[in-house]
Amino acid sequence: MLVLAGGVGAARFLRGLVQVVEPADLVVVVNTGDDLRWHGLYVAPDLDTIMYWLAGLADEERGWGIRGDTFATQGAFARLGLETWFQLGDQDLATHVYRTERLAAGVSLDRVTDDLAARLHVRARLLPMSNEPVTTRLRTDRGDSHFQEYFVRDRCQPAVHEIYWTGLEAARPAPGIAEAIASARAIVIAPSNPIISIGPILRVPGMRELLAPARGRCVAVSPLIAGRAVKGPTVELMRAQGLEASALGVAELYRDLASAFILDAADVGLGPATSGLGYRVATMPTLLDDRQAAQAVAATALNLVQTEMAA
Amino acid sequence: MLVLAGGVGAARFLRGLVQVVEPADLVVVVNTGDDLRWHGLYVAPDLDTIMYWLAGLADEERGWGIRGDTFATQGAFARLGLETWFQLGDQDLATHVYRTERLAAGVSLDRVTDDLAARLHVRARLLPMSNEPVTTRLRTDRGDSHFQEYFVRDRCQPAVHEIYWTGLEAARPAPGIAEAIASARAIVIAPSNPIISIGPILRVPGMRELLAPARGRCVAVSPLIAGRAVKGPTVELMRAQGLEASALGVAELYRDLASAFILDAADVGLGPATSGLGYRVATMPTLLDDRQAAQAVAATALNLVQTEMAA
Repeated sequence: MLVLAGGVGAARFLRGLVQVVEPADLVVVVNTGDDLRWHGLYVAPDLDTIMYWLAGLADEERGWGIRGDTFATQGAFARLGLETWFQLGDQDLATHVYRTERLAAGVSLDRVTDDLAARLHVRARLLPMSNEPVTTRLRTDRGDSHFQEYFVRDRCQPAVHEIYWTGLEAARPAPGIAEAIASARAIVIAPSNPIISIGPILRVPGMRELLAPARGRCVAVSPLIAGRAVKGPTVELMRAQGLEASALGVAELYRDLASAFILDAADVGLGPATSGLGYRVATMPTLLDDRQAAQAVAATALNLVQTEMAA
Repeated sequence: MLVLAGGVGAARFLRGLVQVVEPADLVVVVNTGDDLRWHGLYVAPDLDTIMYWLAGLADEERGWGIRGDTFATQGAFARLGLETWFQLGDQDLATHVYRTERLAAGVSLDRVTDDLAARLHVRARLLPMSNEPVTTRLRTDRGDSHFQEYFVRDRCQPAVHEIYWTGLEAARPAPGIAEAIASARAIVIAPSNPIISIGPILRVPGMRELLAPARGRCVAVSPLIAGRAVKGPTVELMRAQGLEASALGVAELYRDLASAFILDAADVGLGPATSGLGYRVATMPTLLDDRQAAQAVAATALNLVQTEMAA
């Protein structure tokens, strides 16, 4: 099975998925549009979130970083008078230092990601969407920002006029993605932000062409429940893109790529319209606040695709 | 005043010196032969030791690093299965991360050193001996090692056959050293290891030529007391260089550069021989285990040079 994933929403879903799928059979293609250089260190927020959750190290309450981590280096950055709005825990820092050193030594991001995941005993295979840097940027009423500046530093306060990406022209799907898509029994678009988590993955040149033939095996899980995001600026950014901020709006985005769609029970009223887009639809609780809920959604996603394939 | 300095021995001396000299009038030229890349980070052990002591941040008991520092990142390096024999504290790490980022951005080591010292409110001027990398290496009975591998990882256990330096041919004294030597009222060779702390400074091409005309203003403080080092492998490395491991052996090394020499009271018997080398000699307690002792040695060093100049 292959999952297209952003950060914490996808991580919660994957926590359930590994209860119903053998982790060694799981490939996760992760957004790197949020990646940034922070004091020179290469930080990959979504890759790290997924890796820490699957390694059992995540601070699941906070959503990011490592459980029980401390912030002494942050304090020392502050003493040096340096920016500290992007928080890096002391344990977390080891990941970034090692990744940065490996990248500087000429190792590709997919190889470093493999290496890090193996060192943390993660059995699923994690793949960055591309080895080439693709960066999500926003034009807001406070100027031009990296996504993390908008999201973390400015706490999603600025009005967003435009979302755009740099680096797309040189990017291609990371090695292994084509083969993993071709051989996956099922493909799941995780309940992640469709604009800034799944969006960058789908914008990598060649990615849609790899996914389109697998449409019959692909199921999407709505990240919106009753028009609201569990976490993060999904609604704001969908509106900034001129989209309807609802599960149906998400379903419209994925209709060329997925043949099944999971709606939250609260959105049962959107079922007929979603079916009308050509989806096989399931409706169930999708708030993945515990392992059981995540596991149930994961099992339903698999069933939907297997039903489709048997049809 | 200008001081040639290694690590903790020099730092203890400087702690006393800043009681008798206005810190803003002090220039410290620091050994960088011990510098290393550690998980990709540029670590400058002697520069950091001097900086932390002068900033009032040093762990004076341990000699290196920051007082009260924690080691969570080290634990995370270990979890990743990476080498951990060189310990970096979490607060300390901020220094290395920032320095590494600035160097990668093309800023020279002397500028980064200035910047870091200013950020930590150090009023003395710290200068690396050179902006070009010069590395102290050893051939031992366990093979070829970086100095830190021998010193920290191997705890000075291997027998040393040869000490050598890489990078010397391309190195030159860092910007500002020539002017600082020319204008210094006094130059002090701190009580540091003459082989691997002061030695690399003096081996930078052009450094001896800058210092030689200032011989009348230069005083050296013996790092050996009764043939023993307060800390570190001074005796072992002097012997590896075929030198007599005593204050007199040190005095022989500096006779072209210094005109005054401070011996420990325990070495009073070496006084006549040291004078015989052409030095003006003072004998006093040189174990710099508190501020008062360091201050007394610093005051004596100044007096010796001023006496010389008045003569």
